[in-house]
Amino acid sequence: MPQTIHPDYAARVEALAARLDATAIARDRAGGSALHERGLLRESGLLPLSVPRVYGGQEAPWPLLLHIVRRLAEVDSSLAHLYAFQHLQVATVLLFACPAQQERLLRGTQEHNWFWGNAMNAVNNQAIATPVDGGFTVSGVKAFCSGATDSDMLMLSAQRADGTGLIVAGVPSSRAGIDIRQDWDNMGQRQTDSGTVAFDKLFIADEEVLGPPGPLSTPRSTLRPVLAQLILVNLYLGIARGALDSALAHTRDSGRPWPWSGIEHIEDEPYVLQRYAEYWVDLKAAARLGDDAAEAFQHAWNAGEALTEAQRGEVAIQVAEAKILATRTGLAITSGIFEQLGARATAAKLGFDRYWRNLRTHTLHDPLDYKKRDLGRWLLTGDVPKPSFYA
Amino acid sequence: MPQTIHPDYAARVEALAARLDATAIARDRAGGSALHERGLLRESGLLPLSVPRVYGGQEAPWPLLLHIVRRLAEVDSSLAHLYAFQHLQVATVLLFACPAQQERLLRGTQEHNWFWGNAMNAVNNQAIATPVDGGFTVSGVKAFCSGATDSDMLMLSAQRADGTGLIVAGVPSSRAGIDIRQDWDNMGQRQTDSGTVAFDKLFIADEEVLGPPGPLSTPRSTLRPVLAQLILVNLYLGIARGALDSALAHTRDSGRPWPWSGIEHIEDEPYVLQRYAEYWVDLKAAARLGDDAAEAFQHAWNAGEALTEAQRGEVAIQVAEAKILATRTGLAITSGIFEQLGARATAAKLGFDRYWRNLRTHTLHDPLDYKKRDLGRWLLTGDVPKPSFYA
Amino acid sequence: MPQTIHPDYAARVEALAARLDATAIARDRAGGSALHERGLLRESGLLPLSVPRVYGGQEAPWPLLLHIVRRLAEVDSSLAHLYAFQHLQVATVLLFACPAQQERLLRGTQEHNWFWGNAMNAVNNQAIATPVDGGFTVSGVKAFCSGATDSDMLMLSAQRADGTGLIVAGVPSSRAGIDIRQDWDNMGQRQTDSGTVAFDKLFIADEEVLGPPGPLSTPRSTLRPVLAQLILVNLYLGIARGALDSALAHTRDSGRPWPWSGIEHIEDEPYVLQRYAEYWVDLKAAARLGDDAAEAFQHAWNAGEALTEAQRGEVAIQVAEAKILATRTGLAITSGIFEQLGARATAAKLGFDRYWRNLRTHTLHDPLDYKKRDLGRWLLTGDVPKPSFYA
Amino acid sequence: MPQTIHPDYAARVEALAARLDATAIARDRAGGSALHERGLLRESGLLPLSVPRVYGGQEAPWPLLLHIVRRLAEVDSSLAHLYAFQHLQVATVLLFACPAQQERLLRGTQEHNWFWGNAMNAVNNQAIATPVDGGFTVSGVKAFCSGATDSDMLMLSAQRADGTGLIVAGVPSSRAGIDIRQDWDNMGQRQTDSGTVAFDKLFIADEEVLGPPGPLSTPRSTLRPVLAQLILVNLYLGIARGALDSALAHTRDSGRPWPWSGIEHIEDEPYVLQRYAEYWVDLKAAARLGDDAAEAFQHAWNAGEALTEAQRGEVAIQVAEAKILATRTGLAITSGIFEQLGARATAAKLGFDRYWRNLRTHTLHDPLDYKKRDLGRWLLTGDVPKPSFYA
Repeated sequence: MPQTIHPDYAARVEALAARLDATAIARDRAGGSALHERGLLRESGLLPLSVPRVYGGQEAPWPLLLHIVRRLAEVDSSLAHLYAFQHLQVATVLLFACPAQQERLLRGTQEHNWFWGNAMNAVNNQAIATPVDGGFTVSGVKAFCSGATDSDMLMLSAQRADGTGLIVAGVPSSRAGIDIRQDWDNMGQRQTDSGTVAFDKLFIADEEVLGPPGPLSTPRSTLRPVLAQLILVNLYLGIARGALDSALAHTRDSGRPWPWSGIEHIEDEPYVLQRYAEYWVDLKAAARLGDDAAEAFQHAWNAGEALTEAQRGEVAIQVAEAKILATRTGLAITSGIFEQLGARATAAKLGFDRYWRNLRTHTLHDPLDYKKRDLGRWLLTGDVPKPSFYA
Repeated sequence: MPQTIHPDYAARVEALAARLDATAIARDRAGGSALHERGLLRESGLLPLSVPRVYGGQEAPWPLLLHIVRRLAEVDSSLAHLYAFQHLQVATVLLFACPAQQERLLRGTQEHNWFWGNAMNAVNNQAIATPVDGGFTVSGVKAFCSGATDSDMLMLSAQRADGTGLIVAGVPSSRAGIDIRQDWDNMGQRQTDSGTVAFDKLFIADEEVLGPPGPLSTPRSTLRPVLAQLILVNLYLGIARGALDSALAHTRDSGRPWPWSGIEHIEDEPYVLQRYAEYWVDLKAAARLGDDAAEAFQHAWNAGEALTEAQRGEVAIQVAEAKILATRTGLAITSGIFEQLGARATAAKLGFDRYWRNLRTHTLHDPLDYKKRDLGRWLLTGDVPKPSFYA
Repeated sequence: MPQTIHPDYAARVEALAARLDATAIARDRAGGSALHERGLLRESGLLPLSVPRVYGGQEAPWPLLLHIVRRLAEVDSSLAHLYAFQHLQVATVLLFACPAQQERLLRGTQEHNWFWGNAMNAVNNQAIATPVDGGFTVSGVKAFCSGATDSDMLMLSAQRADGTGLIVAGVPSSRAGIDIRQDWDNMGQRQTDSGTVAFDKLFIADEEVLGPPGPLSTPRSTLRPVLAQLILVNLYLGIARGALDSALAHTRDSGRPWPWSGIEHIEDEPYVLQRYAEYWVDLKAAARLGDDAAEAFQHAWNAGEALTEAQRGEVAIQVAEAKILATRTGLAITSGIFEQLGARATAAKLGFDRYWRNLRTHTLHDPLDYKKRDLGRWLLTGDVPKPSFYA
Repeated sequence: MPQTIHPDYAARVEALAARLDATAIARDRAGGSALHERGLLRESGLLPLSVPRVYGGQEAPWPLLLHIVRRLAEVDSSLAHLYAFQHLQVATVLLFACPAQQERLLRGTQEHNWFWGNAMNAVNNQAIATPVDGGFTVSGVKAFCSGATDSDMLMLSAQRADGTGLIVAGVPSSRAGIDIRQDWDNMGQRQTDSGTVAFDKLFIADEEVLGPPGPLSTPRSTLRPVLAQLILVNLYLGIARGALDSALAHTRDSGRPWPWSGIEHIEDEPYVLQRYAEYWVDLKAAARLGDDAAEAFQHAWNAGEALTEAQRGEVAIQVAEAKILATRTGLAITSGIFEQLGARATAAKLGFDRYWRNLRTHTLHDPLDYKKRDLGRWLLTGDVPKPSFYA
C-alpha cells in the first residue's frame, strides 16, 4: 500500500508529520485550537500548494495534495482536516470565482501564505444575506465552521434573503461582523475548530460575491462537493492507516500471546494474524479505490468547463464508492485493533481510542446510506447523482 | 427485553441509577476516583445484598444481583463494575473460605457495610507471598486492582514463593504494607480505580489465608472465575442497553431525516429503522443468553459441594456463549448508533462516545477468541473448559 | 440448545425424522412430490395433532407443534414445511370459521386424517370469487400453493369480484374446478409442491365461506399471519440446526487439519473452533428468541377473542425479532460450514448444499427489511405493525 | 469496473461467452463432461493463447488471459476453469521444463491445439513413481483432476517412491496406464471434470520428467502455485460479477417493490439500492486488487530466473490479498442477491443458485485462513510465505 508523495515534497511532509505526531495524543485530550501546530502548517510552505502557477503557485495536482492529507491524517487527523480544507477553499475560488476574484484571492494566498477557514455548512445554515447598497449584509449563525479560528481568510456562504439561492464569498476573517466562537468541544476531530461563526451585519461587497460562474452553476462548479467528499475519503483512509500501523508497531514491540493460548510467539498467534490480515486487505482495497477516485477527479478537473454532467456524475460515483469502503473499513479497524492490542493498550497515554473517535465523528459528515442510495440507483438506472452540497 | 429487578429493591436501584446518571458524563471526562458516588453506593444499602442470611444478610440471588449490575451499567458502567466486584469478593469468601473466615468476613461486610476492593489479577502478577512466622509477607505489585481505592477491605492473591500456588486473603485495605496507587487513567471504565497496588512486606496471618477449601480446589470453588465472567457479561449488556436506549431517546427527541432524503419524519427513515431493529434484536438475544447463564449459575451455586466438574463446565460454557454475543453486539451498537444520531450527537457534552470506550476497554479483560476456542472444542469433543482464572 | 418434544410424541417424531432423513438427499435432487413421505406423515398419527379436544383431537400446544416442525426441518425442510402448513390450515379454521364450520372441518381432519394443502398466497393472487346463486364461483390462478398436491382438503382464498375483500374456504381438493399443477421446480424447498393451482369456476357454497368472524376481522383472527411467520422461524431454525449438526458430525468423523497448518488434530484447529463457536452461539440465541416467540404466541392464542390489538402486535414483534435472527444466522451457517468441511464435502452425494438452498429459498417468503422497518418503528414510536397477510 | 480484453480477442471471447451462456443453466443441472462446449473452446482458437512466440504462439500476457478467464466465468465458471487450467499447464511447462521439453510440448500445443488436463493435486495424492529402466512407472489414484476428461495431454505429478520429492510430466492422455474416471458429481463447478484419475503402471520416460529446473526448484519455478491461486481469484471474481450483473438485469427487467412497502418504483426501493451499492463497491475493490495482482505477477514472470525469493513472495502476498477479498465478497454477493430478487427468482430454470454453488465449491480449494495467516505474519515480521503447492 505505497503512499507516494512526490519527492519534491516528501521530506517537508514527513518533517511536519513527525512534529504533529509528537504531541497529537496530548492535544487530542486538550482539545481547543492548535495554534502552535497551525503555525507549523504555515511554516511548512505547504499551505499554498494548490495555487495555480498562473498566480505564482505550484499547482500541485489533487492526487498529490490528497496523499499529503492522508499522510498527515495518519498522525493527526484534526490538523490534516484543516490542511485539506485550506485547499478546498482554494478550489472554491477556482470553481466559483471570476478571473479577477481568482487573481486577488489566490495570488493573496500565495503571497501572504493565507490560511483559510470556512463557514460553508449547508445543513445548519441560518446565515441570511440581505441586499444593501453595494452588496449584502450577512447575519445569523453557522455551525461546523472548520478552520475558522485563527484563519486569515474565511470562505462563507449565506442564503439570499429573497430565497433565490446562495452567495459565497471569501473575506478577511478579521472583518467587522464576524464572531468566530471557539465552542467546538466534540468527541473527535477535536482540534478542527469546527465550532460556530456568528455573523452580525457582515458587509459583503457585490464584487466579493463569487462568480460568475458562482456556486453549483455548471458541471465544473459542482466539483466542489465532490472534492469535499474526496477529502473526507482521504482523511478516513489516513486515520485508518494510522490506527493499523500504530497497532502493528505496538504488537511487534510488546505483543504477547495470551498466557493460556499455548502459543509462544505473537507472530504465531492465529487470531491476531487473521485479524491483521483482514484489516490490511480491506484498507488496501479502500485506498485503491481512493487513489482511483483521486485520479478520476483530476481528470475531470483538467476538463475545465468542457466537463459534462455525466462525466461529473461518474466521478461523484467513484468518490462515493471509495467513501463507502473507507468508512466501513476504517470503523472496523479503529474499533477492532484493540482485540490484538489487549487491555493494557487502553491506557490513556497511548491514545489508541482517538482513531475511532476521530473517524466516528468525521464519518457522520453526511449519511453514507444516501451515498449508497445514489450508487444503487446509478447501477439500476444509469442516472448519476444530482449535484448538491453533499453529492 | 424486560429487566426485572425484584420490587423489594427496584426503587432503591432506580434512585441510585438516577443519581449516578446525573453526573456520569462529567465524571467520565474527569476520571479518577468517584468518592462521592462510592458513598452513594454505601448509603444505598445495596452493598451487602449478597451476604447470606446466616450472616445476617439478604442472600439476594445472583440473577437479581446481576440485573442490578446491568441496570447500573446502563448509566454508569464504572460504578456498576465496582458494585459488581463487591459481590465477587463476597463470593470469593463463600467459595474459598472456611466457615470461621466466612463468619468473620461476611458478618463484617453486613454489619460494617464494608466496600470491598480487589488485587486478584492473575496475568500481571508480581506479588509474592513468603512464609514467615505465623503467616506470610507479601511484596510486589499487582495491576488492574479495580475498586481498591477507598475500599474498606481488599481481597488479594499472591504467588507462594515456593511456586506451589496461590494464597488468597481478605484484609483491611488500611493495613501497613498496602499502597493503593491512584494511577488508573485509561480510555474507558475510567472510574473503576483499576490501577496498581504495591505490597511491601504486607503481613498475612495463617488464619487469614482463605481455606479450606481455598482457591480452585473443588469444582464449586472454581465457580469464582465463572462468576467474574458472568459479571462481565452483565456489564457489557448494561453498557449496550444504555447506549441503545439513550440513542433511541435522542432520535425520538431530536432526530431529523437527512434533508435530501425525501423523508419527512424520522419514524419513516428506512435506514434508521433498519439499524435500530438489528441492534435491538441482537441485544435482546444477548440479554436472553445472559439471563439463561445467570439462572444456570444460580443452579450450580445451589448445588454446593455436590457440583461436578461437568456441571461446572456446562455453566462456564453458557457464560462464554453469552459473553461472545454480548461483546459482539455491544461493540456493534456502541459504535453504530452514531449513524442514526448524526454529527451533532458527537458533542462532548452528550457523552455518547463513553459507551464505546467503556465497552471496548472492558471487553479486553480476556481474549474472546479463547472463549470461542473452548466452546468450539466442547462442540467437537464434549470436553468442557479446564477451570482457570479466566475460564 | 435442548429441543424438548414432549415424551408422548418424541418417539414418533424421531422415528419419522429418521425415515425422512434416510432419503432426503436423494429426494432433494429428484424434486417433485414426495408421495411416499407424505404417506409417512399420514401414518405417523401426527397430522391431526393440533385439532382441539372438543373435536376429538389432542390440542397439542403451539410450542410443541413448532418444535416438531423444527425437528423435522433438521432433516427434511420440505416435508417439515408441509407438516407445518397442515397446522396452519387447522389454525385458519380455528381463527376464521364459525363453530359449525369448525365442527365439520376439524372433526373431519381428526376422523379422516385429512392432509391439508393451501392456495392462500396474497401477493400473486389472480383468483376471483364471483357471487352466484348460493355461493361463489372462483376462477383464476394462484402461485406458491404449498402442499396442494396430494392433499385431501384445500384451504383457499380469492378476491371478491366487487373488491370488498377476501373469501376463504376449505374444500375437498378433488372438487371440480380445481387444477393442482405440479409445476414447482425451484432451487430449494423442492418437495413442498409449492406450484400453482388453477381454478375454473370452482363452486364455493355460502356456508363454506369461513366466518364469522372471517379473515383478519378481529385481533384474534389476525393471528394467522403471525402463526405463518412463526412457522417460518421454526423452519429456518431447523434447517440451520440440521446444517450445523451435520457439519459438526462430519468434522468429528472425518475432519483433518490443513496439511500445512502445523496442527495435528482437528479439535485444535483454531479457525474451525472459532467458526463453530460463533455459529453455535448465534443459533442458540436465535432458537431462544424463537422459543420465546412461540410461548408468547400460545399466550395470545389462549386469550381468545379478548386479545387486544396491542397484545397481538407485541407477539408479532416478537416473531419478527426471532425471524430476523433466524434468517441471518441460518444463512451464515448454511453457507459458512463449508469452510470447516473442506472441498471434499462438496460431493453431491453428501448434500450439504441443500441446507443453504432450502433456507435461501424459504427466507424470501417476504422481505426481512420490512420486518425490520416494523420493528424499528415500534422502537421509536411504540406503534405495533398493522396486521396484514405478512405482519 | 471495466473489464478490458484486448480488441484482438474481444470479439472471439464474447462470441464464445455468448454460446456458453446460452446453455450454462441446463448444463449445470446435467453435470458431467461438457464435450460440446470443450469443442467450442477448441474451435475458438483461444486455447493456445499462452504459448510463447518462439514456439509459434501468441504469448498473450497473463493479465489478458486472466481477464478472459474472468469473462468466461461470468457465464460458465466450469468451462472458464477448464480454460484457465489449460494455461496453467502451459505455464507448468514454461516453469518446470527444460528447453527441449518446452519445444516439444508447447509447439505441440500450438500446432495440434492440444487441450490439457491435469492430475497434479498435492493433498490427495496416492500416485507413486517407481524407477524402472529408462524412466518410471506411476501407479495410484489422484483426486480433483480438473480437465482430465476429453483432454489431449495430461500434466501429472507423482511422489517418487524413495520419498525424494515429485516428478512432473506431461503425457498424452490416451497413454496406456491412465484411467480417467468420470466420477465428478459435486454441488458446484459441475462441469470441470474434477474427478479421479487412476494410474496403473503408467510409463514415464526419463526425458519426459520435467526439468531442469523441475518443480519448486527456483523462485521462478515456484510461480506455478502463485499462478494457480491467481486463476482462482479470477474465477471467483468472474462468478461474483456474473451473479451481480444477472441480478441487476433481473431487477431492472422484473423487479417490483414489496406491495406493502409504500414504494412504487424499484429504483426507489431503499434496501435494494443499499445492497446493490455495497455489493458493487466490494466487488469493484476486489477486482482492483485482482488486477493489481495480475500486473505484479506478469512483472515477476518477466523477471525470469532473476526473480528473487522476496520478489516472488511479494507477488504471492498480493495474490493472497486479492483472494481474501474476492472470496468474501463473492460469497456475500452470490448468497445476498436473492434479497433483491425475491422468491420467484428461486425458480430452477433461472439458475441463480449456481453462482453460490460454484463459488462455494471452488473457494474450498485451499483454506483462506491460512492465506490470512501468511499475510498476518508478513505484516508483523516481513517474512513472505514459504513457497508450497498452495502458497
